Amino acid sequence: MIRFIRQVFFYCLVLCLLSLAGTQAAAGEISDATWECLDCHAVVHPGIVQGWRLSRHAATSPSEAMQVQGLGRKISSTDVPGELSETVVGCAECHVLRPDKHADTFEHNGYLVHTAVSPDDCGVCHDTERDQYRQNIMSHARGNLLDNAVYQDLMTSINGTPVRRGQELGIEPSGPETEAESCLYCHGTRLEVAGTELRETVMGEMEFPVIAGWPNQGSGRINLDGSKGSCAVCHTRHQFSMAEARKPDTCAECHIGPDVPAVKVYKASKHGTIYASHNDSWDFSPTPWTVGQDFTAPTCAVCHISLITDTEGEVVAERTHALSPRLPWRIFGLIYAHPQPASPDVTSIVNKDGLPLPTALDGTPASDFLIGKKEMDKRKTAMQGPCLACHDQGLVREHWTRFENTIERTNRATLTATELMQEIWTKGYATGPASGASLFDEYVEKVWSDSWLIQANHIRLASAIAGGGDYGVFAEGRYELNGKIRELHDWLRLRDGLQADR
Amino acid sequence: MIRFIRQVFFYCLVLCLLSLAGTQAAAGEISDATWECLDCHAVVHPGIVQGWRLSRHAATSPSEAMQVQGLGRKISSTDVPGELSETVVGCAECHVLRPDKHADTFEHNGYLVHTAVSPDDCGVCHDTERDQYRQNIMSHARGNLLDNAVYQDLMTSINGTPVRRGQELGIEPSGPETEAESCLYCHGTRLEVAGTELRETVMGEMEFPVIAGWPNQGSGRINLDGSKGSCAVCHTRHQFSMAEARKPDTCAECHIGPDVPAVKVYKASKHGTIYASHNDSWDFSPTPWTVGQDFTAPTCAVCHISLITDTEGEVVAERTHALSPRLPWRIFGLIYAHPQPASPDVTSIVNKDGLPLPTALDGTPASDFLIGKKEMDKRKTAMQGPCLACHDQGLVREHWTRFENTIERTNRATLTATELMQEIWTKGYATGPASGASLFDEYVEKVWSDSWLIQANHIRLASAIAGGGDYGVFAEGRYELNGKIRELHDWLRLRDGLQADR
Amino acid sequence: MIRFIRQVFFYCLVLCLLSLAGTQAAAGEISDATWECLDCHAVVHPGIVQGWRLSRHAATSPSEAMQVQGLGRKISSTDVPGELSETVVGCAECHVLRPDKHADTFEHNGYLVHTAVSPDDCGVCHDTERDQYRQNIMSHARGNLLDNAVYQDLMTSINGTPVRRGQELGIEPSGPETEAESCLYCHGTRLEVAGTELRETVMGEMEFPVIAGWPNQGSGRINLDGSKGSCAVCHTRHQFSMAEARKPDTCAECHIGPDVPAVKVYKASKHGTIYASHNDSWDFSPTPWTVGQDFTAPTCAVCHISLITDTEGEVVAERTHALSPRLPWRIFGLIYAHPQPASPDVTSIVNKDGLPLPTALDGTPASDFLIGKKEMDKRKTAMQGPCLACHDQGLVREHWTRFENTIERTNRATLTATELMQEIWTKGYATGPASGASLFDEYVEKVWSDSWLIQANHIRLASAIAGGGDYGVFAEGRYELNGKIRELHDWLRLRDGLQADR
Repeated sequence: MIRFIRQVFFYCLVLCLLSLAGTQAAAGEISDATWECLDCHAVVHPGIVQGWRLSRHAATSPSEAMQVQGLGRKISSTDVPGELSETVVGCAECHVLRPDKHADTFEHNGYLVHTAVSPDDCGVCHDTERDQYRQNIMSHARGNLLDNAVYQDLMTSINGTPVRRGQELGIEPSGPETEAESCLYCHGTRLEVAGTELRETVMGEMEFPVIAGWPNQGSGRINLDGSKGSCAVCHTRHQFSMAEARKPDTCAECHIGPDVPAVKVYKASKHGTIYASHNDSWDFSPTPWTVGQDFTAPTCAVCHISLITDTEGEVVAERTHALSPRLPWRIFGLIYAHPQPASPDVTSIVNKDGLPLPTALDGTPASDFLIGKKEMDKRKTAMQGPCLACHDQGLVREHWTRFENTIERTNRATLTATELMQEIWTKGYATGPASGASLFDEYVEKVWSDSWLIQANHIRLASAIAGGGDYGVFAEGRYELNGKIRELHDWLRLRDGLQADR
Repeated sequence: MIRFIRQVFFYCLVLCLLSLAGTQAAAGEISDATWECLDCHAVVHPGIVQGWRLSRHAATSPSEAMQVQGLGRKISSTDVPGELSETVVGCAECHVLRPDKHADTFEHNGYLVHTAVSPDDCGVCHDTERDQYRQNIMSHARGNLLDNAVYQDLMTSINGTPVRRGQELGIEPSGPETEAESCLYCHGTRLEVAGTELRETVMGEMEFPVIAGWPNQGSGRINLDGSKGSCAVCHTRHQFSMAEARKPDTCAECHIGPDVPAVKVYKASKHGTIYASHNDSWDFSPTPWTVGQDFTAPTCAVCHISLITDTEGEVVAERTHALSPRLPWRIFGLIYAHPQPASPDVTSIVNKDGLPLPTALDGTPASDFLIGKKEMDKRKTAMQGPCLACHDQGLVREHWTRFENTIERTNRATLTATELMQEIWTKGYATGPASGASLFDEYVEKVWSDSWLIQANHIRLASAIAGGGDYGVFAEGRYELNGKIRELHDWLRLRDGLQADR
Repeated sequence: MIRFIRQVFFYCLVLCLLSLAGTQAAAGEISDATWECLDCHAVVHPGIVQGWRLSRHAATSPSEAMQVQGLGRKISSTDVPGELSETVVGCAECHVLRPDKHADTFEHNGYLVHTAVSPDDCGVCHDTERDQYRQNIMSHARGNLLDNAVYQDLMTSINGTPVRRGQELGIEPSGPETEAESCLYCHGTRLEVAGTELRETVMGEMEFPVIAGWPNQGSGRINLDGSKGSCAVCHTRHQFSMAEARKPDTCAECHIGPDVPAVKVYKASKHGTIYASHNDSWDFSPTPWTVGQDFTAPTCAVCHISLITDTEGEVVAERTHALSPRLPWRIFGLIYAHPQPASPDVTSIVNKDGLPLPTALDGTPASDFLIGKKEMDKRKTAMQGPCLACHDQGLVREHWTRFENTIERTNRATLTATELMQEIWTKGYATGPASGASLFDEYVEKVWSDSWLIQANHIRLASAIAGGGDYGVFAEGRYELNGKIRELHDWLRLRDGLQADR
């Protein structure tokens, strides 16, 4: 009885709260099923319910959204199922969608609910974005990492626990908990139903699935319907904000560290300092997004993803959730910078040395698996669209010249580092690929990997983002790159000297 | 005469300024004594006076504040002295309070004034917070550091000036100026009256006390009334803002560096990126603070300190200025992570090796001085309250499982590093504890201390704050941790080889 | 015909857009010449045109600006040419100014236009600021770096590409593209007309000059009229915002990296955390800028540049675009901290060793080229003006005592490092100045340069900015400084041991 009264009270409260949100919610009706969710979850999970209330989803039905034509349209599907189209997009609309597709579907208060909403669920209304995202290398981030023997070796050397084995230093492999909060935090876990459990809740005891790999919002997460990725990586549940995805801090979740310091570099660039000083007067919500009118300097999304128009309404850049249409070069994460891979699934790449890498250890690209000059030019042109909305052709061309010079220079430095490393392996001062040993488990090998995984990446990102200055020089830039290569050389020559003395 | 006219002019100006602030100040009257302070200080120190004008203190009297009952109440004392209760809390209310308790009390224009206001002063109105803060390990930060022989050794190795002594590298001890802006900047100086001095002021020559150790707002500062700490460390004088203390940047003053990178990690976490994108639409002022309604992602204060309610008004987490009620594990600053100490004063801790550390060098906890399983569970439950306002039990449990896995793994890595260090000491390649030498004054010892003081802390904080990704991997994370331990190993084996060659 | 219609359409659109900006633009008329620019550029470069629309320049004519007298005046010239004074400051007013002075002047639609607007152009209306900036060491940043043989050696070691030459590690010199995005990104490129080119534009084929060194907004850029610097380095074109220059992120573009981490340190200081928490309620626009009323904690500009008044309207600090009037010490970028140079052009400095450095390798200052005690005291007094608007004399004096103690201590540590380096050179373990070799091209030399170029700078900036705590200790602070010097010592002793074993 008390529970019943409590429930009635909850219901009234929710009604009351939602009526307060009248200006937003007036435009659309909430489905009965979502009302039932809110009945409890507005109280037990107020944070996410309130977040949702602030969303467009809570204010608009698909049928209303589909009435918008042209560049302002936010819903790409033209065939949203009738039962979804007339109410706003609430809890039930996503968590009860496609129940037969999700391995975690369970009976919950009379509904077949699943916990982990996937890009294929989102794709019911946003099919273009879903399709584009499948072509995004980020959606393959898990397989591209885990199915690569060289990177498996690197991961073990990083995530394993060092232990002493006699006079040697061994490594105890990591487990799923460590992986989930290190590499796979961004690359994505594989979600799997590991069983069910009973939980005590405010509504009494209830049964829920136990999902291994959860939580995770890695960009390459393997979902329980087999789809890849998570839209929440950039559009955090349950506000699913476009504005959020347009702000650079959002990208920082995966692109701040020294191996891929994009946002760090951006914040020290001219564009980033303009953003910092003026973004409070910008408008991050309109679709399309108008350069000059809505913002006066690019964020990450402006250059890489968003639909941008000029003040005349002409398209400056087309929206792409694949990213690749504006990316000619791949400048981080691998030993050498190289043209983007032709397929977002890079697991089939083999270089001339037989290694699963897009370049050989001497830098030769595995060209059969990479895009060609013509495609690179096309992507460069697309990428430069937003630049030309503020800058003249000469400036943009010179920026690009500097960037490609930096690619060439950093690749050249990496070649020097790699030749030194190979001499060290050849002379037996460290154990290397010839003996089947790890490339990454000795101190001197870390000095080598630093030079390309940290410093060369920093320098190239600083160049690409025009964040030159300190991030291209002292902050893991050229000063550190030259320092690392000199350390390799010094290390090698000391051992040469010791060898000679014997 | 000119001075008199000037003073009248000042007075009018202040009246005028304060009347402009009418909407705030209307609620309370300013005491005569505070009017006298403002008479001059509004002009000679306009920055702090204006800051105070923006405060709640300038707008509310204790008697008004005490009329608020329930969770919205901001003043915890029930027995504020009558002479303080009817006027707003201005200059005189704090700086003339308890004059006989403060060693820096001096006669100033007819008042017995003290410069350094202490937690015991604040406690006249906020006694619960004062009492809680006494139980906060942060209020003992000075003694816990300075009264520990191992940490004294570490401090000397850091703050001392390296000098050459023949073929050896010596260290010249630092002085109070260096200490005040390094370790004691956060841990707290000891304030002491070092004499008095005459100063030329706009009001003519005046006498003031000279306070050694001032300025300082370290969390464990020893005040001139014998109390510990400074409320201004989080609630900066003279605005004393609750909103400020709820924002993560405030914590950054002491929790940004590589030994304790909490805010750095937070900013790259999902919660931190939501904060960055949306905090301009949040409300940081209400008491209590309602999840979902006032904010949609936690800041540092949400998880560790603030009184949080749900939209029904139910308490999600109780306010604590002790912090410990929500802290089961101590994850940074020491060699190994371990259960929180039982007392905030940790100076009596002795481990099984006889060292004043909460774990032995092999990781064995000094359990007699640490909280037990039951208390840890209670604190874990309190800590998870805010998590469960947005997330389901399964997600929260898995987060905790990953966190405790990381504690275990990083402790295991630290054991490996420490065993290598001990072998180095035993073999005489470095001078260590057996000969009474410093643990921290040789290069290889720094490689060892890096591994636990920098990298293991980074990894655990990244795990705790769910800021995984780069800060758990490349940015002083597992990549660097393994690198340091391999450097230790390589360093040791090189010397083994040289020894064998002799 | 289509082009004509399009052009008419553009014109209407621009009119329309500008009428929307009525509240701002009403105050001033746009010149016919600028209308002609806008006719096309509002469409082809909407980003910069909209930025300009948000500027004061777009809303005010010089004659209106000159009507303001006293501290609120923003235009320092008293003799603005008549043809400029009655219209707002638009495209043509700057880009068609002084055509005979600019080497890049070209005919463009009937106008003699130049691309790169210089401080001497800005100086037509802002002559005081132009004159002050000429005395700013930042305007000499290019020559001071490039015309110094020691720094040339350092630059080569940083920006050159390491290559293997037999058993040696050589360095391939960098080129202008690398320089432009590394050191010269901040220090400034030399702009030079390298020819002309035809470009396809929306208006058909047009001829433009090709400017080598462009783009660049380094503070010491050499312009095509021979002037030095770029006002856009702090007041980004085309909004030219005073508010922007007053925010710390703007300074971060050149002052964030480890060699000069001013903004990084500021953000972890008490002042920086107040800024982070409260700046959204501050007013960055007024002239003069009133402490307490407009802001409650200093930004970079408050202490170093801006005209600050108190709430009475009394001047707390005078505006200076030279910076030097508030800078007694030079604390970064050189081997030892020392009094500021007497002239902003430091190329004539020679120390007692004959090197072009303001101190000898043993720290002895080249006093003939540096300011004396009296000038230092005068600058210290000016610098402390803003401090005293919030703090008492005792606090400010103690801050300064700590700062000068830190200068002395870090210089002492640098002396130890340098003596170790000299012993290494003398013993031939590295090749040094005696043999005419580079001071910076070997690993151990980098350990030495780290100690003063990175760590000592960090510690001094943390001290100066009262950002003590972690940035003075662990984050490239004293912990790392002592670590580097111990590494130097360990490196040297290992080689001594090997030598003895031979």
